[in-house]
Amino acid sequence: MMKLSAEERAAALKDLPAWRYDQERQAIVRQFQFADFQEAFAFMTRIALAAEKADHHPEWSNVWNKVDVALTTHSAGGLTVKDLDLAAIMDKAASA
Amino acid sequence: MMKLSAEERAAALKDLPAWRYDQERQAIVRQFQFADFQEAFAFMTRIALAAEKADHHPEWSNVWNKVDVALTTHSAGGLTVKDLDLAAIMDKAASA
Repeated sequence: MMKLSAEERAAALKDLPAWRYDQERQAIVRQFQFADFQEAFAFMTRIALAAEKADHHPEWSNVWNKVDVALTTHSAGGLTVKDLDLAAIMDKAASA
Repeated sequence: MMKLSAEERAAALKDLPAWRYDQERQAIVRQFQFADFQEAFAFMTRIALAAEKADHHPEWSNVWNKVDVALTTHSAGGLTVKDLDLAAIMDKAASA
């Protein structure tokens, strides 16, 4: 799994407008907000299954109705296609 | 729900030796570590159900096999019995 170049990253983020690149963490980050804890955790459960299936896991935190996510690929030392894929899955799950 | 006094807090933490009090957050904090992501998320799922039932929710983050938790009662401006109860439930679930 190859780390994306800065050009590849910029192009990919155009399709993920809700995400921003965090240079320090070498990760893409986004906050999701839901109606309440139930909705937030239902989202996390869907994503947990998808993450396990892809063998690629988010770094995330949850405070009641909010879920803060950072996606990076430690083994590649930065952002890879795996992160973009999981970000797209999350966007879809959150808007469903 | 009354905020615990410093004396009550100190006494309660004797029964929760894996937790420490974070003065700045006015919360008790603990890290749980599991074999892998599946085990970590299974724990989170059990706790999510317990939290929803108690209508008292953790602040928590997860990175693969680790779950970092902070418990406080915002409406009381600090630690209450609700936090101690949830901490005990977490300890039990993690050792089960």
